[in-house]
Amino acid sequence: MKVTFEELKFFLEEQFPQGAAYGALEALGEGWAEMTLAVEDDHLRPGGTVSGPAMMALADVTMYAALLSRIGLVPLAVTTNLNINFLRKPVAHAPIRARATLLKVGRTMGVGEVFVYSDGMEDPVAHSTMTYSIPPEKYQN
Amino acid sequence: MKVTFEELKFFLEEQFPQGAAYGALEALGEGWAEMTLAVEDDHLRPGGTVSGPAMMALADVTMYAALLSRIGLVPLAVTTNLNINFLRKPVAHAPIRARATLLKVGRTMGVGEVFVYSDGMEDPVAHSTMTYSIPPEKYQN
Amino acid sequence: MKVTFEELKFFLEEQFPQGAAYGALEALGEGWAEMTLAVEDDHLRPGGTVSGPAMMALADVTMYAALLSRIGLVPLAVTTNLNINFLRKPVAHAPIRARATLLKVGRTMGVGEVFVYSDGMEDPVAHSTMTYSIPPEKYQN
Amino acid sequence: MKVTFEELKFFLEEQFPQGAAYGALEALGEGWAEMTLAVEDDHLRPGGTVSGPAMMALADVTMYAALLSRIGLVPLAVTTNLNINFLRKPVAHAPIRARATLLKVGRTMGVGEVFVYSDGMEDPVAHSTMTYSIPPEKYQN
Repeated sequence: MKVTFEELKFFLEEQFPQGAAYGALEALGEGWAEMTLAVEDDHLRPGGTVSGPAMMALADVTMYAALLSRIGLVPLAVTTNLNINFLRKPVAHAPIRARATLLKVGRTMGVGEVFVYSDGMEDPVAHSTMTYSIPPEKYQN
Repeated sequence: MKVTFEELKFFLEEQFPQGAAYGALEALGEGWAEMTLAVEDDHLRPGGTVSGPAMMALADVTMYAALLSRIGLVPLAVTTNLNINFLRKPVAHAPIRARATLLKVGRTMGVGEVFVYSDGMEDPVAHSTMTYSIPPEKYQN
Repeated sequence: MKVTFEELKFFLEEQFPQGAAYGALEALGEGWAEMTLAVEDDHLRPGGTVSGPAMMALADVTMYAALLSRIGLVPLAVTTNLNINFLRKPVAHAPIRARATLLKVGRTMGVGEVFVYSDGMEDPVAHSTMTYSIPPEKYQN
Repeated sequence: MKVTFEELKFFLEEQFPQGAAYGALEALGEGWAEMTLAVEDDHLRPGGTVSGPAMMALADVTMYAALLSRIGLVPLAVTTNLNINFLRKPVAHAPIRARATLLKVGRTMGVGEVFVYSDGMEDPVAHSTMTYSIPPEKYQN
């Protein structure tokens, strides 16, 4: 890996001023990452369930973590496309967790998929695919 | 319209406990809606620009508003699919605004597209398409 | 399963007048299917590689086969959303194969993902997610 | 424009060996294009309507035409992401037409949206967004 678990955890906390609002890094490997989000009132939507944007935000940052495992600490890698299907209603107030896996890392872009789970349910609550753009000058393969 | 501007504005503020964190309704018509978000530190990402999740959240709620203009105040209409392309870097700290237009409203689902703009730029910063699922018992055409 | 491999193979050939132009069913299980497409001149694009539409068509019909394994022979199930990422250039003139897996089957819709491979390459050439709408009267769970 | 209507029409017919199977260029402007497809038996799906893949193929090539209006005749520009929502059942056997508009053209990618119409219906039958990758050496802005 281009970065250790500890280095990435520190980097994410430092880069995102809102910190834990985006979730906590739980595990990291070559081309994959897992993060969790402790659901708070800010993450709820009408009906009392976890909001779509809370799941999208967790999916997005988990994919970012997976990408950095392959390209190193590149702050300016940015999402260019995100597609998400919401599959099931999450358990109210239960933490959600995401697992991102890269499908491809090229010179200028990385593509991956993310499954989002709700604690206490076996089946995924959402599935997302994403493309990140990698700034050319920052890529060091 | 199935709902007035004032009714919908009150409904959104009441339904979303986080209130203004999701944006403010600016205009509403038959099958379309406009909302703005005053960008705060919580909405920034590494590099100081408006985060993708902040744009997705605004796009999502603006599409919800556009849908409710056609089906009335249905709290349990939920996003089932969202696709977004991030086109340009928004102006740092400037408000963002979204305009959602319905492409179709059927018996069980509504589909629409949303353009997101950054104050001070002419071209859109993001474009999203979305599908909302409409709970059958709540549809009153 | 709601249908056997032989029943589904016969159904697909009967339903699609263009027959093998859409690919051949290779394997079928509870919630998944595999199909192959023998690439011909009609499936090529500028540059001599397999066209995007040929891969989309194969992904689409393979997802349809996976869905029918769960809901039975429903001709009027139709795609409502398809998202596809093209990951790598397929081998020229080599057959392509797709594997579809359902992520969810509800009362009115099914969601799944499809990986597309090119014979002679290990990594996938494309990845797609899809939503099918299931006509209410035809669903027999 | 980087290319005239006649140049592009000739280029498309020359590049795609299957020719008219992909549709005919009808109109071209700076950042947009319109194409039509005469629907034949090959383009039908179970139920007798125009197949999803036929609409996707027309959307894809129309977006390609719109992109070439801005970057010139670049054969190796390829689709990297396509998202499509199928909105309404097309008229059986009627021609379909697509109008593609660019949302952004950058150094390495172009993003656009495409509306697909069925002759005899006012509302669109499908809406697609797409990203094309532009080979670096070929870009001449």
